[in-house]
Parts: sequence; C-alpha cells; structure tokens
Amino acid sequence: MPELKQALRNISLIILDMDGVVYLGNKPMEGAARAVAFLRGSGKKVVFLTNNSESPRSFYVRKLRSMGIAAGEENVITSGQVAADYIRGRDPQAKVFVIGGPGLVEEIRRAALKLVGPEEADYLVVGIDRELTYQKLADGLRALLAGAKFIATNPDRVYPTEKGLLPGAGAIVAALERCSGRKPDVVIGKPSPQIIRFVLRAFGAKPKETAIVGDQIETDVKAGKRVGLLTILVLTGVVKKEDVEKARGTKNFPDFVVDSLEGVIV
Amino acid sequence: MPELKQALRNISLIILDMDGVVYLGNKPMEGAARAVAFLRGSGKKVVFLTNNSESPRSFYVRKLRSMGIAAGEENVITSGQVAADYIRGRDPQAKVFVIGGPGLVEEIRRAALKLVGPEEADYLVVGIDRELTYQKLADGLRALLAGAKFIATNPDRVYPTEKGLLPGAGAIVAALERCSGRKPDVVIGKPSPQIIRFVLRAFGAKPKETAIVGDQIETDVKAGKRVGLLTILVLTGVVKKEDVEKARGTKNFPDFVVDSLEGVIV
Repeated sequence: MPELKQALRNISLIILDMDGVVYLGNKPMEGAARAVAFLRGSGKKVVFLTNNSESPRSFYVRKLRSMGIAAGEENVITSGQVAADYIRGRDPQAKVFVIGGPGLVEEIRRAALKLVGPEEADYLVVGIDRELTYQKLADGLRALLAGAKFIATNPDRVYPTEKGLLPGAGAIVAALERCSGRKPDVVIGKPSPQIIRFVLRAFGAKPKETAIVGDQIETDVKAGKRVGLLTILVLTGVVKKEDVEKARGTKNFPDFVVDSLEGVIV
Repeated sequence: MPELKQALRNISLIILDMDGVVYLGNKPMEGAARAVAFLRGSGKKVVFLTNNSESPRSFYVRKLRSMGIAAGEENVITSGQVAADYIRGRDPQAKVFVIGGPGLVEEIRRAALKLVGPEEADYLVVGIDRELTYQKLADGLRALLAGAKFIATNPDRVYPTEKGLLPGAGAIVAALERCSGRKPDVVIGKPSPQIIRFVLRAFGAKPKETAIVGDQIETDVKAGKRVGLLTILVLTGVVKKEDVEKARGTKNFPDFVVDSLEGVIV
C-alpha cells in the first residue's frame, strides 16, 4: 500500500490498541512482534494502549515481553493510569473510592491519591471489577448520592476471553447510572478523547504526527478521529471485512484498513 | 371526603402497596391496622402487594401480623410470585436461571419450575439480589447471549432502608442490559400492568371494582391507571404534598389523594 507508506512517513508516534491487535487473549498475533520492530526501526515511538483498567502496567509489560515485544512501563498506558492522572490534575489531595481491579487501585496509589470509603469520597472511580459485590454497588451509590464526582475508566460493555464474553466496566457503570440517576462526569477510555490526549501529552506528540491502530471502529477509530490522528483499522479483532464495507462513507471510517498489524510493514 | 366514600362504594378489592403505605421499613404507619380493619369491615377484600421479590410471602405475612394486621399468604402478592406464574403460564417445563433473593428462588420452586445454571436456561429471571457478585452477572450475560428470555421482577432503581437508599433490582437489570445489548422481554412489577392483571385474575375482580393505594405516582398510580383501577395516593412515602401539585393535570394524576392510609376511613 503506497498510500499507507506515504502517510506513515509523517508519523512519529504509533498508538497500538493491544487486545485484538497485538494479541487475542493470551495468543500473540502472527507477525505482531515483527511489525513493532519495523515501526521502531523506521524511527517511530510505539505506545501500547488499553481501555481495561483491571491490571497494572507491569502486567502488560510482562505479557508483551513474553510475546517477544520489548516494552517498559513507559510504553504502556491503561485507562486506570489516565483516570488517576485526570483526578490528580484536578485535585492532588482528592479522596477516591474505587470500584475496580488491582490495576486501578495501584494507579490511584501511584498518583499519591488517598483511597477512602464511600462516605468520604470526592471521586468515585469505576472500572472492571471481577470481585464486584452488591455491597460495592451500594457503596458506590452512597458515594454518588453524597456528591462524589463520577469517573468511569472505560465504557466497554463486554470484553472477550477464552471462555467467551464477560461483562465489561460499562455494565457496572450502567448499574450505578440506573440507581443514582447520574451519568459519569467523565469517561476516560476510548472512544472518549481523554485517553488519547493523555498519550499525546505524555509523548509530546502532535495529532498529525500520531497514528492509532485498533480493531474497533466504534472505540479506536472514533477516538482517533476525535483528536485528529491517522487511523488504521486491523481485521484481527472485533471488526471483520464485511463490517468495514457497512461503515464505508460514515464519519468514523478509518483512513486505512489492513488485514493485521503486519500490514503496517510497508 | 364524600367523593371518596362514594367511589369506594363500588370497590370490592383493595390493593395496598406495602412500603410507604402500610409501613416504612419496620415501622407501621399510624392508623394502618385500623384502616385495613375498616376496609374489611365494609366488605372489601384487601391484598398486600410488593414490587420487591427478595423475600417470600411468608416474610410479609409475619411482618403484617407483627403490626396487628391479619394476613395469610393468600393476601400477599410479590413480584417474584407473579414472575414465576408468568413463566409457568408459558411453559410449565421451563428451565430457569435466577439472579435474585431467597424469595424469588422460593417462588420459582413453588411454581414447580426447574432451577438450572446459565447454559441450560430458557428464562433468566432478575430481581434484587443482595448476594450479587460479578460471577452472577457473567452467568446472566451468558444466559442472555445463549438466547434465554429476559424477565425482570421489577424496575425499581433504588429502595429505601433505615440506612438510606440501596440499589434496586433495576440497577442489576441495567448492568445486564448494557452488557447484553438486550432489554427485558417482560417487566413484572409496577408500573407494568402485569402484576396488577395477576391480582385481578387471582381474585376474580374487575378493574372498575378494584382500587390501588400507593405512595408513588410513577409506579402505583401509573400501573393502576394502565389497567383502569381507582387510584388513591397516600403522602406517607415517596411522594410529598408539593409533588402532587406538580403532577396535577398529567395523565397519571391519582383519582384521590389522602394524607395517609387512615384517610380511607370515610
């Protein structure tokens, strides 16, 4: 694809969605490690991005390395990390009540924010929580009724696993929306532009020098378009060839469509 | 109120919402026992109705008796019981997966329906479940993705307790709606007419001979209006005097407003 080659020439930062692009569950995508090496070889910075806030950055670093992809925490961005940064930027003294996984809790701690119970919370942060209980929902409701700001790490309805689809952070957010009568004050993850803007700031990159590679039109491409990035869709995840044809002509149609991440080797 | 006296003359069945009308939490309403005795003395049948499916009918019988109100299971209707009846009426062999409290499980058993895991379920029934876990939501999603019919015992967003508002069945239903992308195929509890129609059938009563007394316009009065009952609003629960004025002229404005259940002694 000479057009893609041409377009990539102006790009200095590549944001790679992980699940469905670099790997599927625990299985690395064919050629993904080579594609990352090629991009780096052509002088681009590569950052690995996930909407999921369950696991800490160190988890993704280990996972990528196990697939032959060199990565450090400085190359990995999670929605939990961006949620913590968002709160810290507004109030470094903020007291935070978390409904979420260990990765989200770790990010709140690393941002030196104070973890508290629902009564004291200035912020309620909600991500995927596989240890969710009714009591946690009740605590979340209490925090919201007491006026805590409502932050969702990501809006994902489901996420795919080897055992099939599991409820995503969006399902937990929906329960809290329904009982509190409130919507999140901010959603961090894609398709929200928040997480993309964070990456641009973190790497000092301009939108027109940045590309995002993802497997979903409604999250990855949409988020990229909102901020003005070059958008590249791969067909190894959620979106299949037939879905692409349906999306043609819509405003979230990607700039380029490649079969897999390997397609960026141009 | 001579008009209320006149209207009640044609009524043979009175449906009383419980929480906010007969009691508030564990506290009986002043005059409630006397009002029930008066209605019965004037030859009317009284049935106690709750949208909540958490507890079995026997729980409400004990609760009412402890407040000096004679009741048997034949006078108490819960949304769990009506959900079980609804399924049984469609398929007496139905296999049911329950997310809900002990009362709902008991009603499914009493209707001789088969309780099964999510993979086998013809029906997913969802009510308030204070033992809710992430795993139960994941199981509910699995049942819905496998095509199980989706039944909500009631749509209540919250319910009041001595310790404040807790998430209602509606919050759990919302989580499952978001992750499955499906809405319930049927909602049993008020403001749905399902539960009211069940009461009418169970007592062989016609709508124009039946009154409903409740503390909420958006559930009790709305459900009553949908089926053509006489609707009486009390001000001892959710709706206060100032809310009544706002609702004046709307299609769900109650036929009568009384300060408390005692107001039916006319």
